[in-house]
Amino acid sequence: MTTRSPYSMLSVEDALDITLAQAHTPAPVHRPLSDVRGAILAADIAAREPLPPFPASTMDGYAVIAADGPGDYPQIGEVSAGALAAFTVKPGTVAYITTGAPLPEGADAVVMIEETERLDAAADTPRIRINQQSKTGANVRQVGVDVEVGQTVLAAGERLDPAEIGLLATAGIIDVPVFPRPKVAVLSTGDELIEPGESLGPGQIRDSNRAMLLAAIRAVGGEPVDLGISGDTQEALELRVHRGLTQADILLTSGGVSMGDLDLVKPLLEHAGTVHYGRVRMKPGKPVTFATADVERGRRLVFGLPGNPVSSLVTFYLFVVPALRKMAGWQDPHLRQVKARLAQPLPLDAYRPEYHRATLTWDADQACFLAASTGIQASSRLLSMRTANALLALPQREGTMAAGELVDALLIGDL
Amino acid sequence: MTTRSPYSMLSVEDALDITLAQAHTPAPVHRPLSDVRGAILAADIAAREPLPPFPASTMDGYAVIAADGPGDYPQIGEVSAGALAAFTVKPGTVAYITTGAPLPEGADAVVMIEETERLDAAADTPRIRINQQSKTGANVRQVGVDVEVGQTVLAAGERLDPAEIGLLATAGIIDVPVFPRPKVAVLSTGDELIEPGESLGPGQIRDSNRAMLLAAIRAVGGEPVDLGISGDTQEALELRVHRGLTQADILLTSGGVSMGDLDLVKPLLEHAGTVHYGRVRMKPGKPVTFATADVERGRRLVFGLPGNPVSSLVTFYLFVVPALRKMAGWQDPHLRQVKARLAQPLPLDAYRPEYHRATLTWDADQACFLAASTGIQASSRLLSMRTANALLALPQREGTMAAGELVDALLIGDL
Repeated sequence: MTTRSPYSMLSVEDALDITLAQAHTPAPVHRPLSDVRGAILAADIAAREPLPPFPASTMDGYAVIAADGPGDYPQIGEVSAGALAAFTVKPGTVAYITTGAPLPEGADAVVMIEETERLDAAADTPRIRINQQSKTGANVRQVGVDVEVGQTVLAAGERLDPAEIGLLATAGIIDVPVFPRPKVAVLSTGDELIEPGESLGPGQIRDSNRAMLLAAIRAVGGEPVDLGISGDTQEALELRVHRGLTQADILLTSGGVSMGDLDLVKPLLEHAGTVHYGRVRMKPGKPVTFATADVERGRRLVFGLPGNPVSSLVTFYLFVVPALRKMAGWQDPHLRQVKARLAQPLPLDAYRPEYHRATLTWDADQACFLAASTGIQASSRLLSMRTANALLALPQREGTMAAGELVDALLIGDL
Repeated sequence: MTTRSPYSMLSVEDALDITLAQAHTPAPVHRPLSDVRGAILAADIAAREPLPPFPASTMDGYAVIAADGPGDYPQIGEVSAGALAAFTVKPGTVAYITTGAPLPEGADAVVMIEETERLDAAADTPRIRINQQSKTGANVRQVGVDVEVGQTVLAAGERLDPAEIGLLATAGIIDVPVFPRPKVAVLSTGDELIEPGESLGPGQIRDSNRAMLLAAIRAVGGEPVDLGISGDTQEALELRVHRGLTQADILLTSGGVSMGDLDLVKPLLEHAGTVHYGRVRMKPGKPVTFATADVERGRRLVFGLPGNPVSSLVTFYLFVVPALRKMAGWQDPHLRQVKARLAQPLPLDAYRPEYHRATLTWDADQACFLAASTGIQASSRLLSMRTANALLALPQREGTMAAGELVDALLIGDL
């Protein structure tokens, strides 16, 4: 038993460790091949047949017996892809063959068409001049040369991108064992919020966080569930939190995690489950809150994200994305990290490590990433996330980092 | 008028230039905010209101008149987010305020709650001890500090990722002007092909390319259209090519572009439109063919991709992806390129530049990308695309590149 208060200040690293310790990968499911892109494979896939399953020509040309050598030979038939030859190539004969077609019995090599001449095309049995000495096996893909029977073509834990989907198709796996995509519900809280399509009344602002988080969830492979906006009353909030816990694996609330007495989210989470942390030494995002709640169908993760849009999205990437990836079966759920050279000097914060929004581009001359700040980093200023594809992990200390210094950059978008 | 035969050998660079010259960005459409992730914005978006639209507290605390200074003051009311105060803060009074709430009239600063004491909470009008001297504007977000009225919050040509979607929501734009996602139809050709779920008969192989390409189209932001498998007859092929040209902006055929007389795709493309190239100096992918066809609704791009799965996917990334991006409105449609250090020596090809499949990982010690080959690079061996996130552009020359040498890497997947 720890005696730490959930509201004592944690480092980002400790908070992430606590988060990942609570994120469990559920049992695998089977999904159709057309619906597994981006999912993690839950079982090794072994080939049940060799590839190619028959010796196949890699060229358009003539199936020959290599030992026959150059010379003029009767063409005794032709074989194209998808058809089996009804004849045998005997010494002193050749057969026309197309790319991908099975090598006919008797033949042991293919001479490409450019090395041949068709001598009397009009005849019933045309004669073919072979100008090249072949070696046995020339221009033939032997059975199993690409994939042997029993070979593991994909291993549990691999992510299914287009090539891996092609390999599953080749192996005849159309019902694929994968870890399910985590469902992530998003609830915005606050009496001041209206829908993006509504006109502003006095004291109101449009809810930007929900549309943003729903898009972000989809971008990182989760399945979003929209819980709408809840006003600041306990009943409204409880109803939607309950719906979220029932319908999703992860619940995100956005807003309502600072210190005032209208802050209903924290007490609700304390009541519904266990609050693991509620203050993290970081800028922005300090009030981010993490709880778990056990419901009938299992343990749910709940993140109380700050209401400021930048804080909300930064804490989403730093804590929710790794948790979501672990639940989706990723073997390394952390954000990818590279080094980048600062394009301009950046002031540091003496009290908190800062996650400075930046756009990384590849500098071909210096052969390194260049990190350009997105400008004023106020946590309410969503413009500081515009075009950002990285969070620069700036150290907590006094002073400034100089232009040209190398800094750790966490990737949050495409390069 | 050029007299170049479409089947003379081109460099990859020339072929790509020819492709991009034919790829046009269609007229913008309007799509709902929930459906624009990854799309390119087609018009500048200017803010119609300032953000915040009212002076807002950044803290839970007390709205004060800064000039009053520290002391004990009566609390004359409270104001929370989403509500307007029905009172004015007069000199010598304070009002309770929560984060995000509009600053009440009369007040010009907020003192955070930690710097105050509530002296007689039970009284009708509690008295509040203010322990801090404020400056005018302290803990208040002024009107328009994050976004000014008329400011361009997003510009035409920007990609709509989660933060940009949040900005659109803030600006009240729920009907978003974007360039439409290109529709890309995929047709596999070949009598030898069967569906991935079927049992192999003699001479047959499973169609891996279609499932792979459909997944790849979705991964790069296109809208896939599945045209199935066509057998090697002119009628079957024409029917499906016609369907593809009608339903999609880009048509991909996979298979049937080498030199045999069962190769029906090239004559069909010559008949249906203009073949721009049919041979490219590259390994793999040499027979890749590009044509355009004018139909009622506009010009279509048609790519005849080679049947070998690796050739098919490599030419998809090198030619189809940039064309698709240009049609989707991307300002720079090229694949992103970085430098990587070879993890092992790689043999070069004296006759063709090679696009060697590799997995890039970030080497934290050397602060650079390390490129590990995916192994045997046969164009039929789809295993060489497994886990590949980059194509190494190996120069055309004799010999070997040594381990540790820097090589250009084109990104085709997540890092």
